[in-house]
Amino acid sequence: MQINLHQTHHEIGDFEAIFKYLTSTFSTGKQNGLHLFPELFLTGYPLQDLVLQKSFIEEYLAFLNDVTLWSEKQFKSAAPIALLVGGLAYQFDSVGLPLQIENVIYLIEPGKKIKAIYTKQLLPNYDLYEEKKYFSPGHLPSVLEFDNKKIGLLICEDMWFSHLHDHDPVEQLKDHLIEKKLNCDLVVNLSASPFHLGKHDQRIQRALEIANYIEAPFAYINRVAAEDEIIFDGRSFIVNGSDVIKLAKAFNSDVLSLELPIFTKSQNEFATKFKTSSNSWANLFTTRLSSDTLALLPLKRNECQEILDALILGISDYSVKNKISKFSIALSGGMDSSLVLAILKIMKDKLPQKIEIEAVFMPGFFSSSQSYDLSYDLCQNIGVKLTTMPIKFIHSTIKGSYRENFSNEMKGLADENIQSRLRGTLIYARSNDIGSMVLNTSNKSEIAVGYSTIYGDSVGALSVLGDLYKSEVYELALYINEQYNDMIPEEIITRAPSAELRENQEDTQSLPPYERLDPILEALLSNRFSAAHLIQKGHKKEEVLKVFSLLTKSEYKRAQFCPIIKVKAKSFGFGYRVPISKKTL
Amino acid sequence: MQINLHQTHHEIGDFEAIFKYLTSTFSTGKQNGLHLFPELFLTGYPLQDLVLQKSFIEEYLAFLNDVTLWSEKQFKSAAPIALLVGGLAYQFDSVGLPLQIENVIYLIEPGKKIKAIYTKQLLPNYDLYEEKKYFSPGHLPSVLEFDNKKIGLLICEDMWFSHLHDHDPVEQLKDHLIEKKLNCDLVVNLSASPFHLGKHDQRIQRALEIANYIEAPFAYINRVAAEDEIIFDGRSFIVNGSDVIKLAKAFNSDVLSLELPIFTKSQNEFATKFKTSSNSWANLFTTRLSSDTLALLPLKRNECQEILDALILGISDYSVKNKISKFSIALSGGMDSSLVLAILKIMKDKLPQKIEIEAVFMPGFFSSSQSYDLSYDLCQNIGVKLTTMPIKFIHSTIKGSYRENFSNEMKGLADENIQSRLRGTLIYARSNDIGSMVLNTSNKSEIAVGYSTIYGDSVGALSVLGDLYKSEVYELALYINEQYNDMIPEEIITRAPSAELRENQEDTQSLPPYERLDPILEALLSNRFSAAHLIQKGHKKEEVLKVFSLLTKSEYKRAQFCPIIKVKAKSFGFGYRVPISKKTL
Repeated sequence: MQINLHQTHHEIGDFEAIFKYLTSTFSTGKQNGLHLFPELFLTGYPLQDLVLQKSFIEEYLAFLNDVTLWSEKQFKSAAPIALLVGGLAYQFDSVGLPLQIENVIYLIEPGKKIKAIYTKQLLPNYDLYEEKKYFSPGHLPSVLEFDNKKIGLLICEDMWFSHLHDHDPVEQLKDHLIEKKLNCDLVVNLSASPFHLGKHDQRIQRALEIANYIEAPFAYINRVAAEDEIIFDGRSFIVNGSDVIKLAKAFNSDVLSLELPIFTKSQNEFATKFKTSSNSWANLFTTRLSSDTLALLPLKRNECQEILDALILGISDYSVKNKISKFSIALSGGMDSSLVLAILKIMKDKLPQKIEIEAVFMPGFFSSSQSYDLSYDLCQNIGVKLTTMPIKFIHSTIKGSYRENFSNEMKGLADENIQSRLRGTLIYARSNDIGSMVLNTSNKSEIAVGYSTIYGDSVGALSVLGDLYKSEVYELALYINEQYNDMIPEEIITRAPSAELRENQEDTQSLPPYERLDPILEALLSNRFSAAHLIQKGHKKEEVLKVFSLLTKSEYKRAQFCPIIKVKAKSFGFGYRVPISKKTL
Repeated sequence: MQINLHQTHHEIGDFEAIFKYLTSTFSTGKQNGLHLFPELFLTGYPLQDLVLQKSFIEEYLAFLNDVTLWSEKQFKSAAPIALLVGGLAYQFDSVGLPLQIENVIYLIEPGKKIKAIYTKQLLPNYDLYEEKKYFSPGHLPSVLEFDNKKIGLLICEDMWFSHLHDHDPVEQLKDHLIEKKLNCDLVVNLSASPFHLGKHDQRIQRALEIANYIEAPFAYINRVAAEDEIIFDGRSFIVNGSDVIKLAKAFNSDVLSLELPIFTKSQNEFATKFKTSSNSWANLFTTRLSSDTLALLPLKRNECQEILDALILGISDYSVKNKISKFSIALSGGMDSSLVLAILKIMKDKLPQKIEIEAVFMPGFFSSSQSYDLSYDLCQNIGVKLTTMPIKFIHSTIKGSYRENFSNEMKGLADENIQSRLRGTLIYARSNDIGSMVLNTSNKSEIAVGYSTIYGDSVGALSVLGDLYKSEVYELALYINEQYNDMIPEEIITRAPSAELRENQEDTQSLPPYERLDPILEALLSNRFSAAHLIQKGHKKEEVLKVFSLLTKSEYKRAQFCPIIKVKAKSFGFGYRVPISKKTL
């Protein structure tokens, strides 16, 4: 029997495209075997409140009906064939409101109605997940019999039993197989699993454990797409014994086919290690710190490449789905905006579609000539047009007008921020003028301590670097220079970071140096260490307390921030929720 | 036995103030009887991710320990006394991470350790609630025996069984009483229940049903506070039979005392109507529309007053908690900003603390002289200083500079939006200069259809009118004028709404008139009616489709919006979650 993994996706709610994919893929009648699609392939994921919206429900039900008509009438095959696709199953109350919504596996077979054969049991509801808000859990195991094979069914979180859930669907599946005296030929897991660094290895490890526990090969089919802040990285796979026998592309669509392997028991630790990798709060959000010194762990080369791929998918999918192909980047001559521009250039060279990129340099009174020179060099290196739009005169005009009308000199923070906000205003004027997307260039360190001007440098449709600490921004820049012919002028990487909003300003005047700031932030954010613990581990007390206080007081800025492309286990954005008003601890 | 309801609150995590309230209230030894406090009184609510943060947990546990020491050693009373306070109970795993967090009722008695005696069973997880993300539910009923009385215990949602939950704690409590052959003397419900229009009546109705079902008086104690977008309106009460026998203040702290009443059975419908008001999606978010014509229902006078009180509490609590006492309002001469200023003036006159308010009028090329005159008249009426800060010259300067550097004329949308963004920039310069809070002046209609400039008129720390449709903004203005000596010049209310960003601009050039737009929005948002249903009910097809499309396409603006003070059952903000990228339905 052939197994086919369809690692693909369509826009959320694009029922027409999804229907077309199904009907055209299976129009020849030559396909056969088992075809696996990701979790919620029929609708897209995450859907949030859309699942409750009647327009969405009506369109989805009409589409499901079309699928059934197609499956009953047109879907034909000479050899046995079955499709397992993720979708939603609704139950309504007497007035037509959704009473129960289940995240299910639908079985589609020629000549038959589409049929839900398994309901997801473990609904993740931590961090950015909120499936318990929308879905009702299933309680029963399910084994599909197809072409004389027994296929155990799971959906995504079902393979990740932990203290957050009340029972283990994998154990339940095994018990069911034993009770019914069934030999399992294959376990499949339909997933829509968000990317973060290290997650792929966790999935493989867990899959190998389950394969050996159930004693069957394990097929994992994952969605590939970017949905606002979330990246689905694909990398579907099949494991058998102790081996990954097939692996789909990362961050790209892919279709895999192979003959169903016969299970070979692992000779190594997997046979006995089942459940060692259960999710606790601790390993859900592993801190990227060395355990003894609490120093930030450097990014490995493969991690840099993963981040680069993820960011490119994040930007490109967001822009395609929102129908924008032009980008305007406010270039400062500093590291962050330069890196965003470099990533855009790499994306443009990689993708087939036409993309236009422009850079705008907006010097103020305190912008150094070096900032212009470096911006110019970068744009020359990568062939991007650079426009200089000075803000000095506008800034003066505003100061004069402010002085005249408020009888007060605009100075200090007001005078710093106005420059940043003028730049935000001007880059958005450009965006309105040419229909381009402005990408945000803030990094995670700045966002964490609120070292940014709201409506100023914090503007943008999408944040590219907002899940990377400043130290990691540098690491990624070095990696890109190594891979792409020193695209970014070296001095951009080596010069001291500065917002250039006042004379001789440097970041270190307001913040601890990034090599000390970033580990403190990672400790506070990722595993929510207390300040006391950090101090005890040798971090400077005044720095820890200052950072904690800055983090706590800047919630109001993050509350108005754009979506941040997620590449870490613990990120700002949808999975980070802290009240603005609260006693500062 | 005396019952005492402590309708009060402290800032989230302000353990020092909470401890002081307890110790000082009970320091005389003269208090007695049963003292009831709101849900999560010991921590504040909502806490979101704070409950997982180790700094928070360490401080909370130290505080709980202090309460126990106080209760064991210092807390004394001649007569029987018991405190029922809401708090959190933690269980930790072997490495000290939270394994289970329960939302409980603690019993505090003289000479005894603090003790959790009941765990909240129904965890609301719809709309803005996400308690299943953080808390583990209880499964058992609890009856406290105190001073020879039997007191049945509930926490908030426990009284709101619906299809969203799997069992009914009220029914369970009744079964338990019957099984143990107990006569119940009182049912108490410790709540932290967010305000929206009509909710108070629902609570009373439900409480009367439960009182008659359990056959005991029912005491409901609610938090009073504003936490970012959420208003807790207090209005604690005790019902007996068919009467509300005691009602605490709305939107203010209050302490009620009364003797425990003896239950009198209702002679009316409550005895038989139990469960009629169960929450379904339909009555959780009742649409404020007439059922036949789908026209927006006008606000009643008492609803206008409730909204006014809620907005004042929302603004004042947010500003106090974030330590700001100055406000800067960008006045346009239009209805929305004028109403925000009027509300601030009413707030200033009502509150004891010193509040400074200033208005800034920023005329552009298309601002009418009437807009200035009306702004001036308003400020004269209410005694607020008005500063005029023209943007014309700055606007010209920017246009010239843009033309010169981009070799392109700034026109159309770019030229409209730049004016709005300049105003945003300038009002924030003022905010930075004098340390004032900028209040957002957008209304719900604009926010829904994206009729605003991101980083322009959409700026602000907090949105005052963002849960009121434009029609309701007018209704509230008329109500205020009636109550407060025609504070707002009549022409502000009667003139045609315009953004004044181009020659002779009026809102109706871009949008259906508000009397048609608002009911369409309410239908789409509150009960998620489909476009087809609205059209079938007689709304114009092209208007319905246009509004639905505008709503769908403007998620990206709402994603960066400030907190909106919630006054309706269904609001934008934390309880509204829709992906930005999706196929427009």
